[in-house]
Amino acid sequence: MALAEKVLTGDVQAAARLISRIEDEFPDALAEMDSLYPHTGKGYIVGVTGAPGVGKSTLTDNLIGYFRKQNKTVGVIAIDPTSALTGGAILGDRVRMQRHSTDPGVFIRSLATRGWVGGLARAAISAIHVMDALGRDIILVETVGSGQIEIDIVKAADTTLVVLTPGAGDEIQTMKAGILEAADILVVNKADKEGADRLKADLESMLELKAPRPEEWQSPVILTEAIHDKGTEELAGAILGHREFLVNSGGMPGRLRERARLELLEAVEGFVSDFIYRLDGGDYLEKLVDDFLQGRTNPQRAAREITGRLADALDK
Amino acid sequence: MALAEKVLTGDVQAAARLISRIEDEFPDALAEMDSLYPHTGKGYIVGVTGAPGVGKSTLTDNLIGYFRKQNKTVGVIAIDPTSALTGGAILGDRVRMQRHSTDPGVFIRSLATRGWVGGLARAAISAIHVMDALGRDIILVETVGSGQIEIDIVKAADTTLVVLTPGAGDEIQTMKAGILEAADILVVNKADKEGADRLKADLESMLELKAPRPEEWQSPVILTEAIHDKGTEELAGAILGHREFLVNSGGMPGRLRERARLELLEAVEGFVSDFIYRLDGGDYLEKLVDDFLQGRTNPQRAAREITGRLADALDK
Repeated sequence: MALAEKVLTGDVQAAARLISRIEDEFPDALAEMDSLYPHTGKGYIVGVTGAPGVGKSTLTDNLIGYFRKQNKTVGVIAIDPTSALTGGAILGDRVRMQRHSTDPGVFIRSLATRGWVGGLARAAISAIHVMDALGRDIILVETVGSGQIEIDIVKAADTTLVVLTPGAGDEIQTMKAGILEAADILVVNKADKEGADRLKADLESMLELKAPRPEEWQSPVILTEAIHDKGTEELAGAILGHREFLVNSGGMPGRLRERARLELLEAVEGFVSDFIYRLDGGDYLEKLVDDFLQGRTNPQRAAREITGRLADALDK
Repeated sequence: MALAEKVLTGDVQAAARLISRIEDEFPDALAEMDSLYPHTGKGYIVGVTGAPGVGKSTLTDNLIGYFRKQNKTVGVIAIDPTSALTGGAILGDRVRMQRHSTDPGVFIRSLATRGWVGGLARAAISAIHVMDALGRDIILVETVGSGQIEIDIVKAADTTLVVLTPGAGDEIQTMKAGILEAADILVVNKADKEGADRLKADLESMLELKAPRPEEWQSPVILTEAIHDKGTEELAGAILGHREFLVNSGGMPGRLRERARLELLEAVEGFVSDFIYRLDGGDYLEKLVDDFLQGRTNPQRAAREITGRLADALDK
């Protein structure tokens, strides 16, 4: 039986294998994905983002616990973009989530990237679809929030949590993260630390300045102490409240559309990059790099030349 | 006179305008860039990366001051990937660098992204080349360090500084950032804070574990208090030491090659994404999104279809 078929029967091992094959960019995995698409769109996708050290993994862990108690099945995708440098996903504080590792209702997958810019976003969205097709009710996507790709992934979520902590530099951090635009829900974690109430008040007054119309979603600011599992219920309530809002306001199609557009663009990028890397067994790109370094070509001319080769290949 | 010609005469206004046109993705700007390439490769590129709030901008500001005292001209590119959400570069703490704004030997440019994934890396590398062609001796590229694109930009620098601060979660932060692989120089900023010496010792023992061969670069760990301009001279010395090492060890060609490869790939990506967004006045992509959402196509088929259209267009 093909991996995709097994995924549709709820086979977690098959799902894990399919995600690995996507990560490794096996062409057959892409074909498997194609047969999964008609079975996706049922899972609810929650993005969890914020700077390193704010407590994203612990919050995610708490949310897993909460949703499991509600008899929801959960998928978790932990994205580690920086591991491109180390050649593999570093578990780090994600080890904490291992308390759920024996629960068949929880499927956790760490993703790293190895390829071109964009490979990670592609793998992440494919992993979301695999978990969706597997029948997971809630899919939590945890990612460090400051890169372009992570923002794209977060934009594709149904509900996005942006996690902050009280402390010096938070105002700047807030501005930098562009959080008012990105966040459906703001989380002030480590709420027992000094400055938590002030940060909450600051965020709320910024949200007032933003002044959405009454029919728009008003992002709430939730205080949590993830390490003590405090505030989890309120946070989960806010997530479900946002989902209800999206459904009632007709906002869901827009989210799905954003996700679909991103996915198509990623697929094209992957198609083209695969082509370039394989051209003349990889020698072509290196020859072009030589030509460029020696002033015999320039990036625009090289881009036209490469796409010309692509056109020739497609004509055959 | 074309902008590129003006840049080559040292015209800062022309350089600023050219970078803006690259950001806005004007096709003529790409052609201008092509005529600049033969005049690049002289500037020394220093990447400054780290999490939000560690003091990157203040350190950069100090380095500007130091290199100006050495009569070096300086270019600064401040990259704000998250501003994709807010629609423009937020100056934030970069306002601090304004003390150099009246010095013609300092050219500071903030970059935001507006387009597809990858657009920012392309704009950043073009901006580096413009500053190089303008004759800047030292080009400082400041970026938040946790996204894939930022890592690619950092990989393309000649010397990369990774900035950390003492405090809770630093060990995890260290691992996450994959800093041992990325950093040519590690900076422990806010060195007056508790835990700075321990962090330095931890980093040094991790570097020992990495155990490079004697002929390899041994990344130093430098303590700074950027806010008091302390440690700047030592840091600048380390940068120049790394440059000397690269030149003597024959490592420069590898750095240039990495940068050239990245630039070619970005150019192809830009070429293809421009094509897709313009196809049938933008309607084509939206129609494909519709088809995908209604199950009439899937990403792989759509990618083949789009590249087929590209092939047709190139054949004409």
